[in-house]
Amino acid sequence: MRISELTTPALLIDAARLTHNLRVMSEALPGPRLRPHVKAHKCTALAKRQAAQGHRAFTCATVREVEGLAAAGLGDDLLLANEVVDARRLGALDARVTLAVDSPETVEAAARGGLREVLVDVNVGLPRCGCAPERAGALADLARKRGLEVRGVMGYEGHAMLNADRAERARLTAESMERLAAAHRDVGGDVISAGGTGTYDLNGLATEIQAGSYALMDTSYMALGLPFEPALSLLATVISVSQAFAVADCGLKALGMDHGNPRIDDAKVWFCSDEHVTFGERRVAVGERIRVWPAHVDPTVAYHARAWLVDGDAVLEDWPIDLRGW
Amino acid sequence: MRISELTTPALLIDAARLTHNLRVMSEALPGPRLRPHVKAHKCTALAKRQAAQGHRAFTCATVREVEGLAAAGLGDDLLLANEVVDARRLGALDARVTLAVDSPETVEAAARGGLREVLVDVNVGLPRCGCAPERAGALADLARKRGLEVRGVMGYEGHAMLNADRAERARLTAESMERLAAAHRDVGGDVISAGGTGTYDLNGLATEIQAGSYALMDTSYMALGLPFEPALSLLATVISVSQAFAVADCGLKALGMDHGNPRIDDAKVWFCSDEHVTFGERRVAVGERIRVWPAHVDPTVAYHARAWLVDGDAVLEDWPIDLRGW
Repeated sequence: MRISELTTPALLIDAARLTHNLRVMSEALPGPRLRPHVKAHKCTALAKRQAAQGHRAFTCATVREVEGLAAAGLGDDLLLANEVVDARRLGALDARVTLAVDSPETVEAAARGGLREVLVDVNVGLPRCGCAPERAGALADLARKRGLEVRGVMGYEGHAMLNADRAERARLTAESMERLAAAHRDVGGDVISAGGTGTYDLNGLATEIQAGSYALMDTSYMALGLPFEPALSLLATVISVSQAFAVADCGLKALGMDHGNPRIDDAKVWFCSDEHVTFGERRVAVGERIRVWPAHVDPTVAYHARAWLVDGDAVLEDWPIDLRGW
Repeated sequence: MRISELTTPALLIDAARLTHNLRVMSEALPGPRLRPHVKAHKCTALAKRQAAQGHRAFTCATVREVEGLAAAGLGDDLLLANEVVDARRLGALDARVTLAVDSPETVEAAARGGLREVLVDVNVGLPRCGCAPERAGALADLARKRGLEVRGVMGYEGHAMLNADRAERARLTAESMERLAAAHRDVGGDVISAGGTGTYDLNGLATEIQAGSYALMDTSYMALGLPFEPALSLLATVISVSQAFAVADCGLKALGMDHGNPRIDDAKVWFCSDEHVTFGERRVAVGERIRVWPAHVDPTVAYHARAWLVDGDAVLEDWPIDLRGW
């Protein structure tokens, strides 16, 4: 099949760029040094490519992602890097599942849900989940008393991730990892799980990096000058042209908008509506197909039921985005 | 079932408020005076409620929405208020389908796709689709030469829709409708389709109003002081609490973010991550359930596979969001 036969908007994954990204990351962080985060792509077909590259342990953000990976035969070592107050669906899986905990309530949920292993989630500077570093040891003790195996700690330096100044990114990461190291001294265990695409080569503490965006990239991450290439685009059709601007059929229901407007090559994007992007400066004709580059991959992918793996104009594979929902 | 049994994040539709909104709009715009836009809810179960209220003609933004309504037995009079360059899927439907056209190419697509009826889409001020008003007559002539029935014109005053100043909203609407009236004089036909929730009682020209958001509303539209109530919320679970803030499991993959952050009653929303909302000022406990009010309904609904119709804590019905995709 050719991409000209696809209904638009269509999510395209460039096969060569994906391969490049997977290879570059695997060279930097081979095998278990990388625990790919599937929230960025929500696609078991892509996760299988990552597993084939030697990364058999995955990071998830939702129960549904854990379930989907387990069902796809990728259940060797799944980390739900998020808190839940009801872990029963996780405990019922035929897979090795480790759950993040950051409070007595979430420890209790893990134990009652039938889980056996946890990581203590530590707040290292991002105002989100994670206990205070000085409370991590007591939480680990509590988890062990409840019969849980504490594999170690995790702490996400998300506030450093998209800082365009590499030195400042490194400084924030080091500061965060000091907090995580202190917590780890009190908690023990083999695992220190942290990091992401923006700090994958700056985080000197983590035993495993939870990067996800590196596989597909987006215009926000491209600003960091990382050695990964944008592999995800939207194919759109120009449906209306006037003197000053043109309109294509790829709107904000096909694009995550929290990082702002997408980009279109050689054009200036004016704004997105539900099913339209209005852009100027580039001369196009009605019926012409264009590529739209999303500002944020993760919420973009989550709008689509499938992605198409492509090589130029050739469609190679149809990849269901099968980890959507909760 | 009770809402306490739902997996979060869960999309909730308040049955009483929905009924109120449908009733108020039907009193203002009875029967064919309203052509409800289904893009706001993408749900045939909700469309059936609108049909039961006397509105049997619908507005759609995508081919998929037209197909889904036709399959649900709601195909009496479907308007795709958008341009397409391939109309074959529409022409194949067992339903009355009218297509917007704004160029010779889209007229040709309608004719080749086997459609019989079109509206000439006129640009009335929003930089998006629609031909210049002075070209509408020639386009209607062209459509008739290609054997198409021209039912009239449409023109969306989207640039007026969310203006919080009612007088200014009225002025912009009147200015837009002058352009549409001029085009209609050249085009002819019985239909002048325009308007939306923000101008439903200000648009004095349109024979039918294409409002959609009124049924569920959102925090952006609430700022206009319209007589509709917010009927759509997200049920979320608090998963982490610290001294200064708390975190619930409803993030930007469950919320359209183009109109900004959602609201949480009695709290200050700090920011959304993929699967989290961080908020302050309200004291909550881990495991507590809260309501999150989306800033923009349309792209919020599009992230969810289903909505739950609720009456207080009781879950009345499970409504698939079955018009998603393209």
